[in-house]
Amino acid sequence: MSAASMDHPLAAEGHSPPATAAMAEVVVERWCAGIAEDGLDWAAAELPVSLDYNGLSHAVMLASPADLEDFALGFSLTEAIVTRPGDILDLSVSTVANGIRVEMRIPERRFHALKQRRRSLAGRTGCGLCGTESLAQVFRPMAPVRSRASLEPQAIQRGFVDLAAAQDLQRWTGATHAAGWIDAQGRMSLSREDVGRHNALDKLIGALAARGEDLGSGAVVITSRASSEMVQKAASVGIGILAAISAPTLTAIELARDLDLTLLGFARQNRHVLYAGPQRIRRGEPS
Amino acid sequence: MSAASMDHPLAAEGHSPPATAAMAEVVVERWCAGIAEDGLDWAAAELPVSLDYNGLSHAVMLASPADLEDFALGFSLTEAIVTRPGDILDLSVSTVANGIRVEMRIPERRFHALKQRRRSLAGRTGCGLCGTESLAQVFRPMAPVRSRASLEPQAIQRGFVDLAAAQDLQRWTGATHAAGWIDAQGRMSLSREDVGRHNALDKLIGALAARGEDLGSGAVVITSRASSEMVQKAASVGIGILAAISAPTLTAIELARDLDLTLLGFARQNRHVLYAGPQRIRRGEPS
Repeated sequence: MSAASMDHPLAAEGHSPPATAAMAEVVVERWCAGIAEDGLDWAAAELPVSLDYNGLSHAVMLASPADLEDFALGFSLTEAIVTRPGDILDLSVSTVANGIRVEMRIPERRFHALKQRRRSLAGRTGCGLCGTESLAQVFRPMAPVRSRASLEPQAIQRGFVDLAAAQDLQRWTGATHAAGWIDAQGRMSLSREDVGRHNALDKLIGALAARGEDLGSGAVVITSRASSEMVQKAASVGIGILAAISAPTLTAIELARDLDLTLLGFARQNRHVLYAGPQRIRRGEPS
Repeated sequence: MSAASMDHPLAAEGHSPPATAAMAEVVVERWCAGIAEDGLDWAAAELPVSLDYNGLSHAVMLASPADLEDFALGFSLTEAIVTRPGDILDLSVSTVANGIRVEMRIPERRFHALKQRRRSLAGRTGCGLCGTESLAQVFRPMAPVRSRASLEPQAIQRGFVDLAAAQDLQRWTGATHAAGWIDAQGRMSLSREDVGRHNALDKLIGALAARGEDLGSGAVVITSRASSEMVQKAASVGIGILAAISAPTLTAIELARDLDLTLLGFARQNRHVLYAGPQRIRRGEPS
């Protein structure tokens, strides 16, 4: 095994890996056209993160260990546990035996509402959805989105170019999704990455909320498919446009139409498909 | 808007959509190079599915409404709620107001163990993992995999060709993942699709278990990334090789090494990367 063959392809091109706990180097064996060689690879960390409110463990999710304050704030907002950043009175992140614990303190009335939501359930149940414990809870009643956003298709296109350039973790690991925030011209001002697409969106929303961004004007671009949960999360904080590189699900489309959220999918070079909320995309007339 | 422009691209080529409740047609607007046109698209359904045991709702997951018996059996096995298919004494699938309910009956001793597992938790909590409610539960102690599987890299390559050909839902919707079971020669005998990659794997494992397949000889090929949960699910039923089209996470790699499961990633045409368990892949000498 030569020293050269142990180089990671990106490192061999002179790139330096970002300094983050969200990825680590591993020894691998690359097989190509019948030949196997030892080499190095970077892999994305995926740690269990427990989100606790006033001492109650509410949800455990596997996530990239980076930007966890953003994650906790974003999740708390998009799952309607709090309605404004100021309701997170205290937040601490600590490494524990089996993962990471994020402890938050919220006002008594909010905590009471959270406990009531949980107590109203029949039986003690787990879930595959974030903190959801019964079918009736999966999609909560929500008001339509009132976002004033209005973008040209070309702005969406530009946003995805910016997003691709910002995917440091993905470039090294190939294992993460990203969510980015773009303005009316398609300029991206913020993005977040995570092994989970829902987490990447929550991290972005948390970071936007923390800096007091006006969510009623821009758009969110994501590198993944668009699920109904992502539509619900975006709408819950007033985001008017969600644009995905890959497909939306039928439920995501139906929910976006119900909530008057603009949903774009298959956003590739020079094309996209509009599934809901056409009023926020300025339609060029066929030439 | 012409009639022709309303055709779905695949239908325009003469293909017929598969008859399944897992997808439906939607009217969309396609934008391409500055021109917007109305058209039709097929989107993957994504319904909340509640898995109930002896009347207790254990987990709610968003899934493709197809092969739900396989899903329920596979999930029950990979989450160690039962240890053999015969322990699912009764299973019924019904459409309810907010989704689909799968009701299963399991032996009293199994149900008792499930309740104990839940009762041992501190506090009443939800989760982002399937039925997992605390950090300590995320990765349960497991014995190493004893699979006798031994495949040549070319068999893995062949398996992915077969898997791609079987992705009906993905071809029409672009929104689903697939998992397939291949033998030592790379021939695929069974595959399942779902909007969720973990669900596709559970459906495959359930279908394999239902037909009494020997899981100690073949390999599973998946169209997604490989997460630690997918490694755990595969290992829990004795599957020795898990090969993914995209990247594994660091935690998946570490878990695969701990459990002696063979993990391959970035399985593309004529190449792959081996992350764990080299003894099950026959290594060709460099020519």
